[in-house]
Amino acid sequence: MNCELCITPGGTVLWQDARCRVVQVEEPGYPGFCRVIWNAHIREMSDLSKADRAHCMRIVFAVERVLRKTMNPDKINLASLGNMVAHVHWHVIPRFADDPHFPQPIWGMRQRPGIAARPDTDFAGLATALAAELKNIN
Amino acid sequence: MNCELCITPGGTVLWQDARCRVVQVEEPGYPGFCRVIWNAHIREMSDLSKADRAHCMRIVFAVERVLRKTMNPDKINLASLGNMVAHVHWHVIPRFADDPHFPQPIWGMRQRPGIAARPDTDFAGLATALAAELKNIN
Repeated sequence: MNCELCITPGGTVLWQDARCRVVQVEEPGYPGFCRVIWNAHIREMSDLSKADRAHCMRIVFAVERVLRKTMNPDKINLASLGNMVAHVHWHVIPRFADDPHFPQPIWGMRQRPGIAARPDTDFAGLATALAAELKNIN
Repeated sequence: MNCELCITPGGTVLWQDARCRVVQVEEPGYPGFCRVIWNAHIREMSDLSKADRAHCMRIVFAVERVLRKTMNPDKINLASLGNMVAHVHWHVIPRFADDPHFPQPIWGMRQRPGIAARPDTDFAGLATALAAELKNIN
């Protein structure tokens, strides 16, 4: 097995527990982009136990709540694709009307050349907010 | 309010309950593509109550299980975007290595001109399988 999400964290870890981790994604034009990565090599959400699946989604929605509170995006995009890396991970992406692809998905056609003038994510602040939001998650 | 998911079903309904519906999506090259649409006009998953959010995800994962069983795809893609129609809906997409965009998201760059030779979805069969899978969901 040579899965990059098994052998690397997949980004700077903002929060983690025994089952999964939240990492920051460095994607130009997409401040606040996070991924929730299941620690074990699981291919599909329906391969998780019911309890683990619910836990994974609680983390995804906690990240959504924190990103909404801290960044006030126009929309949140959630996606679990895994066509290239078939190891459960969720993209949690704050979207803004003036971001490079809006209203297209970030994987779609670029809509504008520039990157919206928006402060870089305060990842330390995000990690602190996540820790508070997820304190009583289990 | 002029939301198309409020004023139309958004596709042929395969299953529904009081809170949400599963519709078939007619997308060339993507047999079995379904959407789970929340009935009420809710913008983000984190705007739902905890119980409603869990219900919504149980339906999404039930659709995933049924599509895996009936179509044996190489991967399942799940996404809640809503940049154009900001009314909670989930794309549940069976992906195949020879489909038009694989391994890209279906919103990305097309990878091959043809449509994989694959039988059309048996939607009546899918509706029956969904009914069985979702019989005891609540």
